[in-house]
Amino acid sequence: MSVTSATGFEAAGVHAGIRKERKDLALIRSVAPGTGAAMWTQNRVLAAPVVVSQQHLALAEPQAVAINSGVANAATGEQGEADARATAVTAAGLLGLQPEQVIVLSTGVIGAPLPLGLVQSGLEVAAKELSTDGGDDAAEAILTTDTHAKTAVVHGNGFCVGGMAKGSGMIHPNLATMLAVVTTDYPLSPGEAIDFLRPAVEPTFNAITVDGDCSTNDAVVLLASGAAPVERTPASDQAFAAALLDVCRDLSSQIVTDGEGATLVAEINVTGAISATEAKAIAQRIATSPLVKTALFGHDANWGRVLMAAGSAPFNGGYAHVEPARISLSYNGTAVLVGGVPQHTEPSVDGAVCTIDLDLGLGAGAASYLTSDLSYDYVRINASYRS
Amino acid sequence: MSVTSATGFEAAGVHAGIRKERKDLALIRSVAPGTGAAMWTQNRVLAAPVVVSQQHLALAEPQAVAINSGVANAATGEQGEADARATAVTAAGLLGLQPEQVIVLSTGVIGAPLPLGLVQSGLEVAAKELSTDGGDDAAEAILTTDTHAKTAVVHGNGFCVGGMAKGSGMIHPNLATMLAVVTTDYPLSPGEAIDFLRPAVEPTFNAITVDGDCSTNDAVVLLASGAAPVERTPASDQAFAAALLDVCRDLSSQIVTDGEGATLVAEINVTGAISATEAKAIAQRIATSPLVKTALFGHDANWGRVLMAAGSAPFNGGYAHVEPARISLSYNGTAVLVGGVPQHTEPSVDGAVCTIDLDLGLGAGAASYLTSDLSYDYVRINASYRS
Repeated sequence: MSVTSATGFEAAGVHAGIRKERKDLALIRSVAPGTGAAMWTQNRVLAAPVVVSQQHLALAEPQAVAINSGVANAATGEQGEADARATAVTAAGLLGLQPEQVIVLSTGVIGAPLPLGLVQSGLEVAAKELSTDGGDDAAEAILTTDTHAKTAVVHGNGFCVGGMAKGSGMIHPNLATMLAVVTTDYPLSPGEAIDFLRPAVEPTFNAITVDGDCSTNDAVVLLASGAAPVERTPASDQAFAAALLDVCRDLSSQIVTDGEGATLVAEINVTGAISATEAKAIAQRIATSPLVKTALFGHDANWGRVLMAAGSAPFNGGYAHVEPARISLSYNGTAVLVGGVPQHTEPSVDGAVCTIDLDLGLGAGAASYLTSDLSYDYVRINASYRS
Repeated sequence: MSVTSATGFEAAGVHAGIRKERKDLALIRSVAPGTGAAMWTQNRVLAAPVVVSQQHLALAEPQAVAINSGVANAATGEQGEADARATAVTAAGLLGLQPEQVIVLSTGVIGAPLPLGLVQSGLEVAAKELSTDGGDDAAEAILTTDTHAKTAVVHGNGFCVGGMAKGSGMIHPNLATMLAVVTTDYPLSPGEAIDFLRPAVEPTFNAITVDGDCSTNDAVVLLASGAAPVERTPASDQAFAAALLDVCRDLSSQIVTDGEGATLVAEINVTGAISATEAKAIAQRIATSPLVKTALFGHDANWGRVLMAAGSAPFNGGYAHVEPARISLSYNGTAVLVGGVPQHTEPSVDGAVCTIDLDLGLGAGAASYLTSDLSYDYVRINASYRS
């Protein structure tokens, strides 16, 4: 059920005509005023809806999200920003909100103008169809090259967290990643949502990659309706934070599993780094290496490529610390290298999941990363799809 | 003729038995004592021959280079270093040199032990076959997944610069790149070679990429025999520097053209950046983006992906400066974006070469990068080849 699982939310997903035949417009709202927050792509080339939504969030707590797929409204100049603003104005009018209470998101082709008329007439249809059953339609309407919808729901003690996401290509951290909308009825005070969202996003959406590319549009949005009759305590806050983390982990994992052309998901666990930030840099470097990813596609425990990648992880203008003689490495629990000494083993990489554990033996820094393999289908999809 | 084109050099390339049927061992020497220098991979995981050769270069001017393909002798621990040292000792004995006058290089599978016996018996054969005609055999013996040998020769006024290289995979800058040996008879004083080599490598071998991956082994070596009867002047030094740059540019361009699975070479020219280092970071980011590279394989002027990459170029712990409204971009001379405004053109990307010119409109920083496309064959080669 995704974004309508929590009490107080309605959603719809409709075919506005931006894409051929498929649903391409999603609308989500908290029926009563609530609170919310968002985290954005770190790309320096921000899409128009990102620019506009950041301005809106600075002015008001969000109460609705309008999302179109098919056109990213990125690299579209002043006209693009005007179109994004007009989208928010239209949605706000239909919902009885102020424009700055509306977040607008887009995903699809960069450089093409937003077909504003289609978006606006689609919003009229979507506003009429808004319902507490609309979560699945909304989750379907935001997809691009995804092969299926991605939703997750966690029920806590008296509250609920639900979400939907799209991913597939340009999946890379720092929220250059994908679109995700998470809703909850857990009662949050104004301004508080970001303090819960940030720690949930860092080890999940910000620790996955499909191709190391970082989009101009992507965002994770949290809307909180406050409709759950929960008495807040430190323990309930912890339970909410844990539920939010679970939803983010579930959605981000689904994004990698459904990565463009993916046949396998690899979990890269780096331990023993000098610091957690160095561990993350190394895990990211391994997770984005085309040579590591093609070897995974070939079901080959080609661990030399993991070492190669670990040794060239950009960090602070140089490379992260690695000492070959201290490195231990295993695939799916089978050691291939212990203290720098090859073990002459041949671990199996036959399954749909591969766990690579790299212990640098230098310190206490640890980080994990999820990545997909690099397959023929990845090339096929991206050589032919204009994104 | 490659490394034996300059006066005073002999070379051989033989089949030592490390690889099946193919030549796999090259030996190059300056007949008389000369000078030389090398630049090395920046990977933190250094292969044993890199560690040993760096020690040798610190002790003496180099006079010979022994190179094996098939096994990288990387991630092989203390035994690997002992094997690399033994290789140098054997070569030195055969050539009447001190071990520290010998540079040893390896390329091939990481983690496998060097078959020292084969290398040593191969060196005995190679030493007997050394000749001034041996450059082509040597250039053939260092190849791995390369489809053909790469050589370049430039004749100056009374001197010559010749070289050979191998590339194909793990091609990425900071000499995490490939193997190249360049020889010259231009007279250089001890210690001077590095001052000529570094500026020739920076815009050539250090500005190419096939897959953004960075090997544990790679090196560019310059040997100078001093055999040319040239009276050195500032003008002749300039002519030598230009010839060396030409050879490095020719070899590095051949490496990209013969990149694993490459069907197209793209030249990424970034101008108008805040600084040259930011320009290089942006050019590198574009040149390594899987989405840009798959679009090139699809002959698609998918310029949104170039913007996406430009906006997420890691620099100084953040991203390089980009302002969307100032960006102009063209493919093969056809503008797609001028001052941030899409031109709604469809440039042709049909040829074997694609030139992408990105003007950021911010400053005077400029840099160029050569890259290949990302094709089905890249995936096929790297899913099946153990490197």
